[in-house]
Amino acid sequence: MRHRLKDVAEKAGVSVKTVSNVVNGYQHVRPTTRARVEQAIAELNYRPNLSARNLRKGRTGVIALAVPELDIPYFAELARHVVVAAAEQGWTVLIDQTGGSREQERVAASGIGDHLIDGLIFSPLALTAEDLAGLDGTPMVLLGERVDHGPADHVMVDNVAAAREITAHLAGLGRHRIAAIGSQRTEEGATARLRLAGYRAALADAGIGYDERLVAPASVWHRADGAAAMRDLLAAGVRPDAVFCFNDTLALGALRALHEHALRVPEDVAVAGFDDIEDGRFSIPTLSTVAPDKERIGRLAVELLAGRIAGDRDAPPRTLTAPYRLELRESTLGR
Amino acid sequence: MRHRLKDVAEKAGVSVKTVSNVVNGYQHVRPTTRARVEQAIAELNYRPNLSARNLRKGRTGVIALAVPELDIPYFAELARHVVVAAAEQGWTVLIDQTGGSREQERVAASGIGDHLIDGLIFSPLALTAEDLAGLDGTPMVLLGERVDHGPADHVMVDNVAAAREITAHLAGLGRHRIAAIGSQRTEEGATARLRLAGYRAALADAGIGYDERLVAPASVWHRADGAAAMRDLLAAGVRPDAVFCFNDTLALGALRALHEHALRVPEDVAVAGFDDIEDGRFSIPTLSTVAPDKERIGRLAVELLAGRIAGDRDAPPRTLTAPYRLELRESTLGR
Repeated sequence: MRHRLKDVAEKAGVSVKTVSNVVNGYQHVRPTTRARVEQAIAELNYRPNLSARNLRKGRTGVIALAVPELDIPYFAELARHVVVAAAEQGWTVLIDQTGGSREQERVAASGIGDHLIDGLIFSPLALTAEDLAGLDGTPMVLLGERVDHGPADHVMVDNVAAAREITAHLAGLGRHRIAAIGSQRTEEGATARLRLAGYRAALADAGIGYDERLVAPASVWHRADGAAAMRDLLAAGVRPDAVFCFNDTLALGALRALHEHALRVPEDVAVAGFDDIEDGRFSIPTLSTVAPDKERIGRLAVELLAGRIAGDRDAPPRTLTAPYRLELRESTLGR
Repeated sequence: MRHRLKDVAEKAGVSVKTVSNVVNGYQHVRPTTRARVEQAIAELNYRPNLSARNLRKGRTGVIALAVPELDIPYFAELARHVVVAAAEQGWTVLIDQTGGSREQERVAASGIGDHLIDGLIFSPLALTAEDLAGLDGTPMVLLGERVDHGPADHVMVDNVAAAREITAHLAGLGRHRIAAIGSQRTEEGATARLRLAGYRAALADAGIGYDERLVAPASVWHRADGAAAMRDLLAAGVRPDAVFCFNDTLALGALRALHEHALRVPEDVAVAGFDDIEDGRFSIPTLSTVAPDKERIGRLAVELLAGRIAGDRDAPPRTLTAPYRLELRESTLGR
């Protein structure tokens, strides 16, 4: 026999609402109450029947978060924040790793098969606003820079301002040969273009001429790419005294390449990244970076999506900007 | 009007099968053919209708991978391999981050609402074999050590042998005060117990007495926990000359704490981890570690699941063991 929520409630001597709160992971349940409910759940071998609950509302209780790559730690950390914010709505979050391919992003954007999810939080790399404009149905919130002025709600950070600010920090240390790692020529490079624009603006602010030999491309942004780009810059003899890497994994790779060349950080080359991933708080040296408020990004995205799912589907698309701050550590300040 | 697969095939001048291969992300499609199909997809604004295709077979074409934490890079890297192997089956993989909570794991194990997924690859932290025994329906493959001899197919690595081998490497360097970081007292510590058993076996092999003051607990295995455990060991005055950390993130935290104490790695303290995450190939120093064959784990799990979904649901549960190797780098060998 399959037990129901009220069987658990009776056994635990609490209300159905309280059992529901425990099952849905709400935080504000007294520990003793939670333990009693969990005991009852275990004894009855109760399994929450999300489908029945939600099908009454024409919903699955499941949303998807579609991101390009989970082994870019930024997306893994963002996913954690989305999962926490979604739990407060009683939602299960399934994560779709698209690999940034246009086909997989289309699958995600069309609702993972149309009937599986109530809504989608989506960080596209390859899809365009035109791709998305043809979609109907699944409520969607976009993250990142790929699709600006698109047909859906959008949560972003001001990449130009943030890149300008961290580059200004490097210039403020008296560095004049400031390299950049992570530029991209392809259509996929929306984030790279904005961060490059901020970098160039800061150079202009500081009266430093732009030297394109100091700008190293990286079509993907893993550690290996940052290390390779740094080695290329050193081999080219352009002698940077600082480098702004367009994300933290690039910067961690650059730190490694500088170490292999016996160059000191920050004395010989100051290094800054972007994302504030956990790795950079423990690297040797620790990494100066731009810290987007990932908790806020996750929360804003979930709130926008909840609004759309609850009904205001015809309101015009909104764009919300999450704050960021600089986290200045050993890789630019020294010990 | 909503276009269908055969409209795309006609426009691109290829077979429906070829369009299907492109849409499902198969690798073996000629680049020129792929480009023609993608062009046709874009012009028709075609969206793959996975649900229609699969509903005919009573399937969604979607499987879930349930893991405790995506910001443990091991799970993010494993997820990438599962996604690749699943794409060859034409499956979309949705990832469920359970946080290791028993309730969220129950939701996952019961099929994310019973009707959403065709199967589940599951790395539980809190669920027991008893929890799982009561489940019917969703085909499932278990990863890791939590539920041994459980009711489902199981892919694992030999944790005792691997931990014994990496600890023997430390002893082989002539180290005699070998610490361990990551022991756990709780029920959740199945992996920790096995790695501790391997560590103890290697000490016995090397004729080194077991000193529990050299074993530092860590209830979670993030960098901060490794750094804190290492600081505790140093503060306790037990003077380790080597440390085996039960995963790589703990080891990266330990490296940081040793750096802050101006201790040299490996000259003063040799450091080894477990998982072979990308971070350890670029850290300063690079990290010696146990490298489980994550690609093989992902592939075995998908193959077992495919067998169950295709029909052999009543065969007895199988346990497959994936290989591992040692990756010895600067943190034990020096430069």
